[in-house]
Amino acid sequence: MASFTRLVRFLAKDGQIYYGDALLPSGVSDISKATQAKVIQGDIFGDHKVTEQVADIRLLLAPLARQDIAAVRCLGLNYAQHAKESGNPIPKYPVLFFKPVTSISGPTDDIPIAPLALEGEGLDYECELVIVIGKEARDVPESKALEYVLGYAVGNDVSHREWQIKRGGGQWGLGKTFDGWAPFGPGIVSTKLIPDPNALRISTVLNGQTVQSSSTKDMIFGVAKTVSFLSQGTTLLPGDLIFTGTPEGVGMGRTPNLWLKDGDQVEVSLEGVGSCVNKVVFKPGSKL
Amino acid sequence: MASFTRLVRFLAKDGQIYYGDALLPSGVSDISKATQAKVIQGDIFGDHKVTEQVADIRLLLAPLARQDIAAVRCLGLNYAQHAKESGNPIPKYPVLFFKPVTSISGPTDDIPIAPLALEGEGLDYECELVIVIGKEARDVPESKALEYVLGYAVGNDVSHREWQIKRGGGQWGLGKTFDGWAPFGPGIVSTKLIPDPNALRISTVLNGQTVQSSSTKDMIFGVAKTVSFLSQGTTLLPGDLIFTGTPEGVGMGRTPNLWLKDGDQVEVSLEGVGSCVNKVVFKPGSKL
Repeated sequence: MASFTRLVRFLAKDGQIYYGDALLPSGVSDISKATQAKVIQGDIFGDHKVTEQVADIRLLLAPLARQDIAAVRCLGLNYAQHAKESGNPIPKYPVLFFKPVTSISGPTDDIPIAPLALEGEGLDYECELVIVIGKEARDVPESKALEYVLGYAVGNDVSHREWQIKRGGGQWGLGKTFDGWAPFGPGIVSTKLIPDPNALRISTVLNGQTVQSSSTKDMIFGVAKTVSFLSQGTTLLPGDLIFTGTPEGVGMGRTPNLWLKDGDQVEVSLEGVGSCVNKVVFKPGSKL
Repeated sequence: MASFTRLVRFLAKDGQIYYGDALLPSGVSDISKATQAKVIQGDIFGDHKVTEQVADIRLLLAPLARQDIAAVRCLGLNYAQHAKESGNPIPKYPVLFFKPVTSISGPTDDIPIAPLALEGEGLDYECELVIVIGKEARDVPESKALEYVLGYAVGNDVSHREWQIKRGGGQWGLGKTFDGWAPFGPGIVSTKLIPDPNALRISTVLNGQTVQSSSTKDMIFGVAKTVSFLSQGTTLLPGDLIFTGTPEGVGMGRTPNLWLKDGDQVEVSLEGVGSCVNKVVFKPGSKL
């Protein structure tokens, strides 16, 4: 089990990038409020130690570097109320798709909207609990699945409904995988601090207004079942992320639809973990 | 541009694993026939050189190590005749999905069929041209796209139709991503040797019988267009693979269906590149 409680990766005031264990004032659990961390030395998935060296945080980065992540799995339609608002049946098995690691970004990075993604309508937000795998997992039973989890973060599965649904030929690859379309963070909270990940408040606040507000207990496939199922015949690697689906309240499920606009500020939050606050930035330019 | 012509990764008779430039007798282009290679030193995506040291090949491995691959993109329905046999319209945009790097295996590795994939019917083969990205590509125009390609290999997008189509909730993630379900190789042929990748014979031979036989000229989105399109708003990284879809003749398109069985030998071949020959091995065991 990891020796840290709240893993962060950050640019320190000394100009270096560190992994650290975030220091929070008593009573505060939102990692995004951390201003200091104890520096971690070594391999966070192997031999490492939390040192007594305290560093000042200048900027929180994505909690894992891109090269530490082999796969970003995502579940679709994994909240009962969201499946309903999308007009879909409750799935019998997890609905699985992937994002490339290039979609990963940090808790305060802008969400860039490239020219191709400015075509058509449907830019949407999706707050999600993100599972971080801590050690190689293969054919793991549900009863042992949490032993393979390093911890949890919150993420935004940024989606473009026109590319995802209408232009994708049925597959969601085109509409969810642009650079920077999977901000996550603000850190990774150890399973030690969150014994039950299936009872956490999760929400999205768009420009100060709450648009998603639910609990992970509405998840159809909970954390242990998800890890167990996805490990059947498939090796999950340390650092793999699993975005576990979003609750109801997405822009697509609203009447009228509520699409993200240039300059919008999207905050996704998970109880016990904290928030990512990302600004939508349209990047018009030359097209194909 | 890469200095090698046919990149292989192999276990040598001296017990070491090397990258090398395959040596082939005059008139032979199938890399799987190589018994020797000139050892490559350095970073194959950066500074490297083909040395004069000749090593004896004991076993060809997947031409790239797992840690050298960040993303495995795959196109669906990218051959006109295959779209037709699948009962699908010609796609207007590439149909994009992903495999995790754990699905990658080598040109002679067994294809393991885990207990979950023994449920239901529909184990199928798909021969595909595999594009290997050579340098970071973002917003690349079609006219320059081939400059970002390291070379080509042949791969098998092993698929389970029941999990892919009926049980996947519409997404293909479950039925195509098991460990070892993306054998590729036998090496990577430089673009120098294949100036036109859209005019190559491609085929699958199952237990000695030809079941797919087509040309990459039937591809709807050719190599340059595919690389250019997928790079719009998305950074393709060195070592990224793109499986470009399969021609007609898959087991699903046949009457009656032709599903892979335990012990079947599947050979996928691409003109100018060579063949991967993989045996299907059922792995019954405990279920969820």
